[in-house]
Amino acid sequence: MPLRPEVEALIGKEFRCLDKGFVRLVDVMGDDAAIVQAARVSYGEGTRSVRDDRKLIRYLMRHRHTSPFEMVEFKFHIKLPIFVARQWIRHRTASVNEYSGRYSIMREEFYVPDPDQLRPQSPHNKQGRAEESLPEELAQTLVERLRQTQATLYAEYQALLQHNLARELARINLPLSSYTEWYWKIDLHNLFHFLRLRMDEHAQYEIRLYACTIADIVKTVVPLAWEAFEDYVLQALTFSRQEQYILARLLQGSTLSEQALLEVGLLGREAQEFQEKLARIGQHLIDE
Amino acid sequence: MPLRPEVEALIGKEFRCLDKGFVRLVDVMGDDAAIVQAARVSYGEGTRSVRDDRKLIRYLMRHRHTSPFEMVEFKFHIKLPIFVARQWIRHRTASVNEYSGRYSIMREEFYVPDPDQLRPQSPHNKQGRAEESLPEELAQTLVERLRQTQATLYAEYQALLQHNLARELARINLPLSSYTEWYWKIDLHNLFHFLRLRMDEHAQYEIRLYACTIADIVKTVVPLAWEAFEDYVLQALTFSRQEQYILARLLQGSTLSEQALLEVGLLGREAQEFQEKLARIGQHLIDE
Amino acid sequence: MPLRPEVEALIGKEFRCLDKGFVRLVDVMGDDAAIVQAARVSYGEGTRSVRDDRKLIRYLMRHRHTSPFEMVEFKFHIKLPIFVARQWIRHRTASVNEYSGRYSIMREEFYVPDPDQLRPQSPHNKQGRAEESLPEELAQTLVERLRQTQATLYAEYQALLQHNLARELARINLPLSSYTEWYWKIDLHNLFHFLRLRMDEHAQYEIRLYACTIADIVKTVVPLAWEAFEDYVLQALTFSRQEQYILARLLQGSTLSEQALLEVGLLGREAQEFQEKLARIGQHLIDE
Amino acid sequence: MPLRPEVEALIGKEFRCLDKGFVRLVDVMGDDAAIVQAARVSYGEGTRSVRDDRKLIRYLMRHRHTSPFEMVEFKFHIKLPIFVARQWIRHRTASVNEYSGRYSIMREEFYVPDPDQLRPQSPHNKQGRAEESLPEELAQTLVERLRQTQATLYAEYQALLQHNLARELARINLPLSSYTEWYWKIDLHNLFHFLRLRMDEHAQYEIRLYACTIADIVKTVVPLAWEAFEDYVLQALTFSRQEQYILARLLQGSTLSEQALLEVGLLGREAQEFQEKLARIGQHLIDE
Repeated sequence: MPLRPEVEALIGKEFRCLDKGFVRLVDVMGDDAAIVQAARVSYGEGTRSVRDDRKLIRYLMRHRHTSPFEMVEFKFHIKLPIFVARQWIRHRTASVNEYSGRYSIMREEFYVPDPDQLRPQSPHNKQGRAEESLPEELAQTLVERLRQTQATLYAEYQALLQHNLARELARINLPLSSYTEWYWKIDLHNLFHFLRLRMDEHAQYEIRLYACTIADIVKTVVPLAWEAFEDYVLQALTFSRQEQYILARLLQGSTLSEQALLEVGLLGREAQEFQEKLARIGQHLIDE
Repeated sequence: MPLRPEVEALIGKEFRCLDKGFVRLVDVMGDDAAIVQAARVSYGEGTRSVRDDRKLIRYLMRHRHTSPFEMVEFKFHIKLPIFVARQWIRHRTASVNEYSGRYSIMREEFYVPDPDQLRPQSPHNKQGRAEESLPEELAQTLVERLRQTQATLYAEYQALLQHNLARELARINLPLSSYTEWYWKIDLHNLFHFLRLRMDEHAQYEIRLYACTIADIVKTVVPLAWEAFEDYVLQALTFSRQEQYILARLLQGSTLSEQALLEVGLLGREAQEFQEKLARIGQHLIDE
Repeated sequence: MPLRPEVEALIGKEFRCLDKGFVRLVDVMGDDAAIVQAARVSYGEGTRSVRDDRKLIRYLMRHRHTSPFEMVEFKFHIKLPIFVARQWIRHRTASVNEYSGRYSIMREEFYVPDPDQLRPQSPHNKQGRAEESLPEELAQTLVERLRQTQATLYAEYQALLQHNLARELARINLPLSSYTEWYWKIDLHNLFHFLRLRMDEHAQYEIRLYACTIADIVKTVVPLAWEAFEDYVLQALTFSRQEQYILARLLQGSTLSEQALLEVGLLGREAQEFQEKLARIGQHLIDE
Repeated sequence: MPLRPEVEALIGKEFRCLDKGFVRLVDVMGDDAAIVQAARVSYGEGTRSVRDDRKLIRYLMRHRHTSPFEMVEFKFHIKLPIFVARQWIRHRTASVNEYSGRYSIMREEFYVPDPDQLRPQSPHNKQGRAEESLPEELAQTLVERLRQTQATLYAEYQALLQHNLARELARINLPLSSYTEWYWKIDLHNLFHFLRLRMDEHAQYEIRLYACTIADIVKTVVPLAWEAFEDYVLQALTFSRQEQYILARLLQGSTLSEQALLEVGLLGREAQEFQEKLARIGQHLIDE
């Protein structure tokens, strides 16, 4: 199927990520029309009334009819640090061909974080970094140190190769910051799932950057599906059974109290998450 | 790992579904403790503070950390009509061994719906049946007719076999109401996904019955995970970006108006779904 | 990526299967070059010597390096009887959108086998039909009977719909010979696996016909990969440890004896399968 | 289901792999009987004749009826170097929970190869190491160097943590030789596939060691399935279409000639692989 010009223009283009990585769309099969086409097979004669593609796509997304979204397929060429690749590969419903350090000599390319990204351990979040950076001078020093270590490790790698040590062994002390690359093929439904998890603020900054770059590509390829994904998934808010109790009272005019939260069992981090959701809802009025 | 006595008591027990079907738990691996055990591997030394299993399981469910739920595995023996099997098999992340009509003679067992279940096409829902039944006498007549057709078809099947027609061909005019059976093995994460879709009011009544039977078994095997699943998934409510606009105004004291819904693009079925969600929230106050 | 003209010419073309079914290639992503392109990512600088695409593809197939074959994707529109669809859907690594008998009215289309295909149960093979057909007159009679039953069943379906019975229930006595249709998307590696199993002589004739039709399409899209698949998989012969003992003696000049087979534990059907493999090897000399 | 005593005895036992790694069977569901039980569902009444479990299991393996083997499930706790984990995770049909370097502090544990394993790049095989070791003294020196680098890197990691750099960043220069651990759950069919690929002589020595350790556990849990797997898969030999031509002539009494190989297109590495297969077959006579 011929691609729309704006998609054609994306193919092969390198979008830089981090200091030396990139995302490159290699090929794509299908678009918004392919989603609709597959969905309509299910409906046969009985569905004359759903005329509008956008309406149908939004209906499918809202009701989690996911199979038509599997009918669009993306293939990317991605260059990324190994520690990012290790998070990425956990998404199992994709096809991957990765550069092999057994066959080939690893290149001298390592991820050096921007000093601005050198942040302290988050005080609230066991798995993340804080909002503010380390003091500028310290950050500069540490970045320099990371860079020197990488240079030393690569020199050692080369020395081992010169002693004719097998590549598969010579590489074992190369760092997780080493860049690798791969071809990655995935369907739109599973890509949306990947994006939801990896664009999330709890995802590590480095993989989030790749996810956002991919999101921009996806937006161009399937604009209607993307819009539906944003409205019904990315920006949607989900309230648990307990949170609904409180919401019911708030809608009746009560004000939020510590006591009320406790009564339904909302405490600690969970209570805080609930208040963040309420704040996000309130934000809509301000945004107008 | 030894099973708890109440789980042991479930193994092998036949739970009837529909007129001739059943669900039977054949084996199970793991329980709530297995979920916690796997999750704790991820946390290593850094997680002394999450002491409580229930708290950890709820945290995992709330944040959609799904992999620890994959560590529990269920194996069922199920007898079900073929049209139900065809909906069921769409869940691909499971292992199946089904009775084969090529190897073996199909048995004279067909699903005959309860007259009470003979309902008109739903006026609102293109894929479902209405709430009320057909007139009792008509329903009786139609059920009788279904039963007779099934008897005729089985007699014909036997006649074809007596002419020595290959089983794989003799069966092709057997109806979708024929019972089949299979072994079905699935992990808890994927089982929860199956249950969420198949316990839903939009699922066909017949498969919903099986899903509810399985849910009762799951509740006994992993009571803490089940409770979390109910609170954060089954009974959770999700609001789209558009719905949040309205919600923000309602929380400020505005009343719901057709106009406001239209302004944010909520119309038709989508507007109605929103109002149903509000009603469900309001229900919590009444339930108290 | 633009398609080669001979592939372009295939897109959308309906290839008839059985009396009323078809296979139609809807879209395809990639070709032989896409396999090579993905494989080369793994090799980086270290692989200057593998210059030839054909040679590389054959190497990948021979050594079961399957991931580059996942980089080619096919989407088909297929119309097929439900009993064939039930065998087909067992291949889980594919995406499917099927016509829904809940949403839509089932069409009056049923598979009526060719009288020539009405064959007795196979005497050797519990799951198959014999080589020879039933007597011609009997076959004609039985075909007519199948056709009449189908007409009766469809009339009854229509009657139930006229009584306004919900579509999801009215259909339950429709036969397994009813035609359905679906969109089916699968990558080349998994498609090869499907073809290996479904082109096999043990597969039911009806699904084999579809598999062979798809094979012809695949041959045009990826000629080099197809050739390698034929040489190293489809027409390959595998010998068990026990069979290798016998083979060793035959290569030394011994003649095959019942006694020798028994000694290594080859008896019954397994011994026969071994002799069939030897015959297939001998056939190569005659074919020259 | 209660486990057999020899399986019970395996649960929880740590089998050491490499210098600091291990494999530990955490739980298992099913055994040889579970395979037979599931397969028999498919056969219903028509299969009285297959009485013997061993015979049925061997039949299933021989004919690649893989689904009954999916009915047995294994859960392992494994400690392994990251570069091994990266090969391992490519097997997508398994469930994994891995130690997280974002949540937790990485431990000071690195893989130090045995000096005997420090081997030159293989002269024939682009991805492997040679048979013979490096000179003993050189090997000792290089091992010592690897160890020192690891110590230095861990000291640097600790320094970064002391500057309060977020764990997710402090770890990026840790080497691929760092140990990680995970829970890994997989069914027997997919485990057999993993073992076939990872026990192969082309797999890297380090992962092969883990595969062989797991194989020993599997043998104890499902002895009949293991025996069938060895006879029909692990030790089986497959001959391509081209190789069959030559085999046909050899069985007729011809002797192998360069010329004959060339005529059918067997040259270079492929011709050599064929001769290795013939040698393996001949070996059977010597082994007797």
